[in-house]
Amino acid sequence: MILVEDSKKENLKGRGYLLRQRSFLKLYLLTLVEKKKEYGLHYQKELIDMFKPYGYKPTLSEIYKSLHELSQEGILKRSKKIKGDPKTDFQELVYYQFTESGYEKAKLYRKQMKVELDRCIGMLQKAVQDNY
Amino acid sequence: MILVEDSKKENLKGRGYLLRQRSFLKLYLLTLVEKKKEYGLHYQKELIDMFKPYGYKPTLSEIYKSLHELSQEGILKRSKKIKGDPKTDFQELVYYQFTESGYEKAKLYRKQMKVELDRCIGMLQKAVQDNY
Repeated sequence: MILVEDSKKENLKGRGYLLRQRSFLKLYLLTLVEKKKEYGLHYQKELIDMFKPYGYKPTLSEIYKSLHELSQEGILKRSKKIKGDPKTDFQELVYYQFTESGYEKAKLYRKQMKVELDRCIGMLQKAVQDNY
Repeated sequence: MILVEDSKKENLKGRGYLLRQRSFLKLYLLTLVEKKKEYGLHYQKELIDMFKPYGYKPTLSEIYKSLHELSQEGILKRSKKIKGDPKTDFQELVYYQFTESGYEKAKLYRKQMKVELDRCIGMLQKAVQDNY
């Protein structure tokens, strides 16, 4: 199962430190895609706006890598749409939406990430307790 | 000021995502060194033990890099000690302790890290709220 492999890789690399940015973004993108089928740039704008009070600005490259991983894992699929007048000035946009089996896989990923988020919050709260 | 540079580097690299492992370890090492002058391996054991419930196992290499940075920043200094019988079987151990001006610098670092920890806890709690 790809998602389990993913979390193994994560642990090997960080030795169990805080969850990686890629996982954090994948979790958010699943929620955003479920709400509305959109293109990458739109999600980036939405995320930067949501995290303004925290000063976190995910790059477009990180968003695309996360969407790509979710597609490779069979959770999301891409669809193309033309914006503007196809005869004169147009732009091809790539939208993301859930695959048929994507919802079930996403449910499992969400479940794993909830455990992971709780673990990380606990670790940081412990750091405040231990050092202040 | 090196510590400010450090936090700038941090922001550039992670684009304001969660605090890096190096900073997390430096904060803990300042607290541990203040409690007891010890050698690197000892701190690693102590940290692995403290974080057992969270599955986080910092590597010795990461601990040494963090101690090295704190030394370069003039907060800690190294001192050597011989363990065992110098005539037959002995081991040279490197201990860490605060420099004279280290306490003041550490105080500033701690202050910055408190803001950073609170920011990260807030970001993760928001992720729980937004996705569950």
